[in-house]
Amino acid sequence: MRRVLAVVTARPSYSRIKSALVALRARSDVELLIVAAASALVTRFGRVVDEMRADGFDVAAEVSSVVEDDTLANSALSTGLLTIQLAGAFERLQPDVVVTVGDRHETLATATAASYQHIPLCHVQGGEVTGSIDDKVRNAVTQLADVHCVATDRAADNVMDQRDAINRARGVQNYVHVTGCPSIDLAAQLDRDAWHSRAKQGVIVLQHPVTDEADEAYAQMVTTIRGVAHQPLVSYFWPGEDAGGSAMCKALRMANARPVRNQPPLEFLRMLLGARVLVGNSSVGIRECSFLGVPVVNIGTRQRGRERGPNVIDVPHDVAAIREAVEWQVQHGPYESSTLYGDGHAGERIAAVLAGKAQEAAA
Amino acid sequence: MRRVLAVVTARPSYSRIKSALVALRARSDVELLIVAAASALVTRFGRVVDEMRADGFDVAAEVSSVVEDDTLANSALSTGLLTIQLAGAFERLQPDVVVTVGDRHETLATATAASYQHIPLCHVQGGEVTGSIDDKVRNAVTQLADVHCVATDRAADNVMDQRDAINRARGVQNYVHVTGCPSIDLAAQLDRDAWHSRAKQGVIVLQHPVTDEADEAYAQMVTTIRGVAHQPLVSYFWPGEDAGGSAMCKALRMANARPVRNQPPLEFLRMLLGARVLVGNSSVGIRECSFLGVPVVNIGTRQRGRERGPNVIDVPHDVAAIREAVEWQVQHGPYESSTLYGDGHAGERIAAVLAGKAQEAAA
Amino acid sequence: MRRVLAVVTARPSYSRIKSALVALRARSDVELLIVAAASALVTRFGRVVDEMRADGFDVAAEVSSVVEDDTLANSALSTGLLTIQLAGAFERLQPDVVVTVGDRHETLATATAASYQHIPLCHVQGGEVTGSIDDKVRNAVTQLADVHCVATDRAADNVMDQRDAINRARGVQNYVHVTGCPSIDLAAQLDRDAWHSRAKQGVIVLQHPVTDEADEAYAQMVTTIRGVAHQPLVSYFWPGEDAGGSAMCKALRMANARPVRNQPPLEFLRMLLGARVLVGNSSVGIRECSFLGVPVVNIGTRQRGRERGPNVIDVPHDVAAIREAVEWQVQHGPYESSTLYGDGHAGERIAAVLAGKAQEAAA
Amino acid sequence: MRRVLAVVTARPSYSRIKSALVALRARSDVELLIVAAASALVTRFGRVVDEMRADGFDVAAEVSSVVEDDTLANSALSTGLLTIQLAGAFERLQPDVVVTVGDRHETLATATAASYQHIPLCHVQGGEVTGSIDDKVRNAVTQLADVHCVATDRAADNVMDQRDAINRARGVQNYVHVTGCPSIDLAAQLDRDAWHSRAKQGVIVLQHPVTDEADEAYAQMVTTIRGVAHQPLVSYFWPGEDAGGSAMCKALRMANARPVRNQPPLEFLRMLLGARVLVGNSSVGIRECSFLGVPVVNIGTRQRGRERGPNVIDVPHDVAAIREAVEWQVQHGPYESSTLYGDGHAGERIAAVLAGKAQEAAA
Repeated sequence: MRRVLAVVTARPSYSRIKSALVALRARSDVELLIVAAASALVTRFGRVVDEMRADGFDVAAEVSSVVEDDTLANSALSTGLLTIQLAGAFERLQPDVVVTVGDRHETLATATAASYQHIPLCHVQGGEVTGSIDDKVRNAVTQLADVHCVATDRAADNVMDQRDAINRARGVQNYVHVTGCPSIDLAAQLDRDAWHSRAKQGVIVLQHPVTDEADEAYAQMVTTIRGVAHQPLVSYFWPGEDAGGSAMCKALRMANARPVRNQPPLEFLRMLLGARVLVGNSSVGIRECSFLGVPVVNIGTRQRGRERGPNVIDVPHDVAAIREAVEWQVQHGPYESSTLYGDGHAGERIAAVLAGKAQEAAA
Repeated sequence: MRRVLAVVTARPSYSRIKSALVALRARSDVELLIVAAASALVTRFGRVVDEMRADGFDVAAEVSSVVEDDTLANSALSTGLLTIQLAGAFERLQPDVVVTVGDRHETLATATAASYQHIPLCHVQGGEVTGSIDDKVRNAVTQLADVHCVATDRAADNVMDQRDAINRARGVQNYVHVTGCPSIDLAAQLDRDAWHSRAKQGVIVLQHPVTDEADEAYAQMVTTIRGVAHQPLVSYFWPGEDAGGSAMCKALRMANARPVRNQPPLEFLRMLLGARVLVGNSSVGIRECSFLGVPVVNIGTRQRGRERGPNVIDVPHDVAAIREAVEWQVQHGPYESSTLYGDGHAGERIAAVLAGKAQEAAA
Repeated sequence: MRRVLAVVTARPSYSRIKSALVALRARSDVELLIVAAASALVTRFGRVVDEMRADGFDVAAEVSSVVEDDTLANSALSTGLLTIQLAGAFERLQPDVVVTVGDRHETLATATAASYQHIPLCHVQGGEVTGSIDDKVRNAVTQLADVHCVATDRAADNVMDQRDAINRARGVQNYVHVTGCPSIDLAAQLDRDAWHSRAKQGVIVLQHPVTDEADEAYAQMVTTIRGVAHQPLVSYFWPGEDAGGSAMCKALRMANARPVRNQPPLEFLRMLLGARVLVGNSSVGIRECSFLGVPVVNIGTRQRGRERGPNVIDVPHDVAAIREAVEWQVQHGPYESSTLYGDGHAGERIAAVLAGKAQEAAA
Repeated sequence: MRRVLAVVTARPSYSRIKSALVALRARSDVELLIVAAASALVTRFGRVVDEMRADGFDVAAEVSSVVEDDTLANSALSTGLLTIQLAGAFERLQPDVVVTVGDRHETLATATAASYQHIPLCHVQGGEVTGSIDDKVRNAVTQLADVHCVATDRAADNVMDQRDAINRARGVQNYVHVTGCPSIDLAAQLDRDAWHSRAKQGVIVLQHPVTDEADEAYAQMVTTIRGVAHQPLVSYFWPGEDAGGSAMCKALRMANARPVRNQPPLEFLRMLLGARVLVGNSSVGIRECSFLGVPVVNIGTRQRGRERGPNVIDVPHDVAAIREAVEWQVQHGPYESSTLYGDGHAGERIAAVLAGKAQEAAA
């Protein structure tokens, strides 16, 4: 029985790996160990660890590591503190493989601890290209990982370009698997025929800080707020915890925006399905919304370089450009579903790879 | 005046960056800050920080971080502890650019702290290919770095292959500079005409643990000891601190080998120049010895994939193979000098890149 | 010149040590080094480090260490993280003596780092008795400290009782100095004749969590809110960051209490001077208010065992008891000033002790 | 069933708590959890964790935390690193009570983590008086602990003197238990009639560094070596890991002393029983040897203030004084057994206290 250890460090990571965790739990050839860490334990980010338990998952260890106040130095401090504690957790739990997902800064702590301890590391969602420090972290994790479950063919090519010199020298084969993105698995559970409910939500704004533009975070949020101000119904979500997040929260409070609390993943997708337009810079607009056919106005550099379906219009941080794009998308209405980021079975394929049955994943 | 901060974490790192530090100190457009950390402070590894001070360098901060006993989990612990303390040091010293050298596990702590704090990071000696965890670390640092000073054209190609997807997306140019390896700068100071003294040293053995073959470290050392047993004069050096190092020390003690203490870099190179053959798996055999023309018998996987001059014979961990290759090299005697890894001016070029005058480096 | 290093870890610590810092800065025989750490750097607690700089103090190092969410395990984590970083700061700054103030959990990190590094440690405000984990921390620091500046004669007796066995065995003398509490120095600057303004503020509520009653924090806050509900004018302050603090904030939000932001120390004392009654469990009620003559209703166990002036009425967490005591104090009005906790010259005396001129302090 | 968690951080700590661990394991009302940490895991100190397992104890967690090189700053670093990891271990293991033993610097990490997490803390061996930083640590732990198992009546008085102000204020009773020292339990298992074998061992030297005399450690060791040089048969043990330990090791190597490897506790006591005289500054001379009746020459300040039986002669670091005292003790031969430090049943009494059955301990 193979001991598969997944480290979940934030709400979006859980969202993106959940269907794989469900598939792993269902396999008889795998013992699933889950470590909840970093912002997955923080009240301000809705403690997704509680949802994980409510979803029936055992949590083998909780690792608290977020140093308060989202400064750049604190993100390095938090990563060091997480690395120290994960080293001990991995030593104790003795996994056969560790899984890490995405490109948040905590991901590098998981990758460092696992690769230094010579535990095979599987990275989910490598090979993509966005536009910030996330690129660096994602690719550094790609270099530390041994096996890669990626969303698209282009991502697979990117991983292989990066790793080929080494893997050829070592004679390693079949280390990249195009599984699709597990976030689509959840979206695939929704009944898209409930389409007519869409207008109910109006415009949804979900905008995160861009870590290397932290100084402009406040101004960027204000621009977006103005860009959607003419719409009859607008709902806001809180931004993430990276450097600049506090400034954006302040902008939302100043505008009396009263953001919606974080939601369980499925409810969140249901809200999106009911949206006229999603505005902001979340990757959910690029991924889940391409499958769901939700119109998206994507602002700024955060998703730069990421592959897009036809549902996305890109605009700069400019009030007029945002306003115009939102009006265009409202006019257009829902798009056809795209399988660019997956067909709804990524979780099962990732579980097969982790169980050492990669041929199942390929089937 | 540009504040250039170099983190030196071990004796070999100092050896490889020293000529660049000398060149930086001599520039009027640079303020040089040096942080000595990790095994550079450890008595068992000869506290290279003391030599740095004896060489006239100010040390702006000492960061102690090596957790005792070279287990795999401890290398992760040490890295976390170093990341925490470097975050504070960078915050305090406010460098304009951070330099990190090589591929040891502490290198990743430097890279993590600098890139998370959005301080431009220069990596010296990326793009090479060896055969162990070092590859992963080196390439992860390549992904986190913004500017790269590499030793050879092939290394430059490797870095560009890895970084191109991102840097093209971002419109970044001229981020890789082929400067040569600064370790050659030191070797170029030696008078190679003192050639006839060579036989005095006999065979020198310098063999390090391979971190993902830590369990075999003891047997590997014993094999090497047997492979050179027939030679009239053999000198041993202590192995490095990575996982497996203690086991190799034990093998040396069991064989009554009485290794030589660590030497200041120049004396060490002078010893090599006086050697009939260098045996082991140190990169010094591949780099400095190609320039010096010292015959080398390179054992096992540690230097796998690294470019070689004509002075190297590769053999597996096998007593007979080692013995035969040593005899062949003794017979052959000194090789012609090769500039594969540099022409003796790498330090000046790296200093120019760090001073923001890359055109000087290209000149 | 003696290098005196003061570690300030929170707003109340600064408030209590400020007059000593001013006196130290004015001395020609002392070089003052200030380290700002822990919640002194946290936005949620008003970043007192910024006020320190505005007050003209240089800050030699900032040490970020507060792990987000006020759980019990996180306070241990934060303390470990602070100890690690202070060890490095002390090593770098090479103080002749370290000063720590009060009984917060971070105080123990300062004391551990200093005493393990054999740097003489001066503890300000030892020897008092309250009613929680603070007692343990305060007394543990008393054991690690070498010199003690205490507020009252009874505190001096307590310190000597605790330390006597050891100090007698070691022949140590004159290690306890009754300097008074520096917090009174600030209060002594206020013009108490502006007495008539008092009614303007109405009732002020300042209630902190009691760390070993964290589970009851919410209920305690609700009880207090109800106890003052009948008063015409009530102002609230935010509670501190210890375990239970978040629950109290929630209670305040539920009651629509809209607490006042933290204030610079002098403004805060001026507000108190204008208060009809101070309600809660802050030590400011016991100390500064005894000097200022402000009527206080002290609730629960947090100040248990601390010496009181005549201005304090103690009540349990009981709505009726709180209401009745508040009415009694409103009726009574201002009290005579008491010098139980000091005469306004504690800062100068502490500075003399730290300068190694204890005889000045005694004069 | 009460969950009792014991943290063992070093060989001597294990030695002193072992009989209590055996008694706890035998109780049906207790679940015993053991955490091995710090130098208990370090190869250089003989990894006592392996002996613990060989003795049949399960180890619930291993916590690596010793930063290499015994500088003063590193002992603070190690303590911080240990506190961080113990916080997580206690959170996970959820003990009802934590036990810590002795006065080493790691002890304070255990006490900090337990008391900040509001887990009742039992301290074994408080209330004694020696002569170094150990006093500070021991008494700081006394202040953080809730229950105390002490060796002697005088130790009980000391603990009560220190804690009385607080415990009276809190109405706490029966928090100090005179159980005797568990180290005597082991000594009581030896057959003292095998007395005649004594001369076989000659003189045994066991001298540790005194942390606040670290600069003199080398000279002190040399003095001792000269003081016993005239004896026909002398065996040496390695000194402990505190600051100064390396210097003492060097002195031993220079003198070609070839120290004996660390021994399992019982074998060690058997060696002592066979010694003409024990020379040095180990507490074993004061404790176990008073029960065993072994003549002891105790050098310097390390045991200053500790209660002594008649078997001890105290001398300063002086060659002539040491020589004379050794000759006197050789002449005198074995002493009568003293029960000053216990009667051989301390372990059972401590186990009863930890099981919450203090009345058994008193019986």
